[in-house]
Amino acid sequence: MRAIIFFGHGARDERWREPFDRLAALWQAQNPDTPVELAFLELMQPSLSGAVQKIVTQGIKDIFVVPVFFGQGSHLRNDFPKILEECRSEFSEISLSATPAVGENLLVLQAIIDYADHSLN
Amino acid sequence: MRAIIFFGHGARDERWREPFDRLAALWQAQNPDTPVELAFLELMQPSLSGAVQKIVTQGIKDIFVVPVFFGQGSHLRNDFPKILEECRSEFSEISLSATPAVGENLLVLQAIIDYADHSLN
Repeated sequence: MRAIIFFGHGARDERWREPFDRLAALWQAQNPDTPVELAFLELMQPSLSGAVQKIVTQGIKDIFVVPVFFGQGSHLRNDFPKILEECRSEFSEISLSATPAVGENLLVLQAIIDYADHSLN
Repeated sequence: MRAIIFFGHGARDERWREPFDRLAALWQAQNPDTPVELAFLELMQPSLSGAVQKIVTQGIKDIFVVPVFFGQGSHLRNDFPKILEECRSEFSEISLSATPAVGENLLVLQAIIDYADHSLN
């Protein structure tokens, strides 16, 4: 059994996480057999380690992390690999994989274009 | 004639803007009659005012700003409305509208779900 973690930046304003909560709810509705957690780089809880811990207690050993970032700047190129490595050391019995940032995906960009197009017309 | 501005956060790492450049290129290819510019809140140029200036010099008076943010935290709830108002004062002959953040759009969130689903399977 596998689980997925949507990993976002985090923010001081609690309302910032609303689309992330919606993302988790959508995932769970469409993939009832693959548990989902959110995790944040900073300013919001849980951390990636905290989210992995929650999943591990369910006996799941295969976790995919999807970075919900547009650009791959220093957060994703420097901070994220370190955090991922720390989690791999902390949970050595777990397989922890990560995808590229969602902003690298053409269909995500196309959905933004469609949204903009719809907003203008 | 109208123009569109994709408004992002900005980052120190130049490579962070790559998906934004791709977004602008996609928009232009699909909407050749609606000029597009990028603008950034901080750490990257141009600012919103700089992007509006570029558009205004083309004689366009109707501009839509699409915030390319997931969550609506203090950047979008506090900073962005102020910047928008400053631009409206600076360019009083221009109509400047803004959509909600792209992360508020269900089809954008669904595209992220589809990307995650595809990455896992």
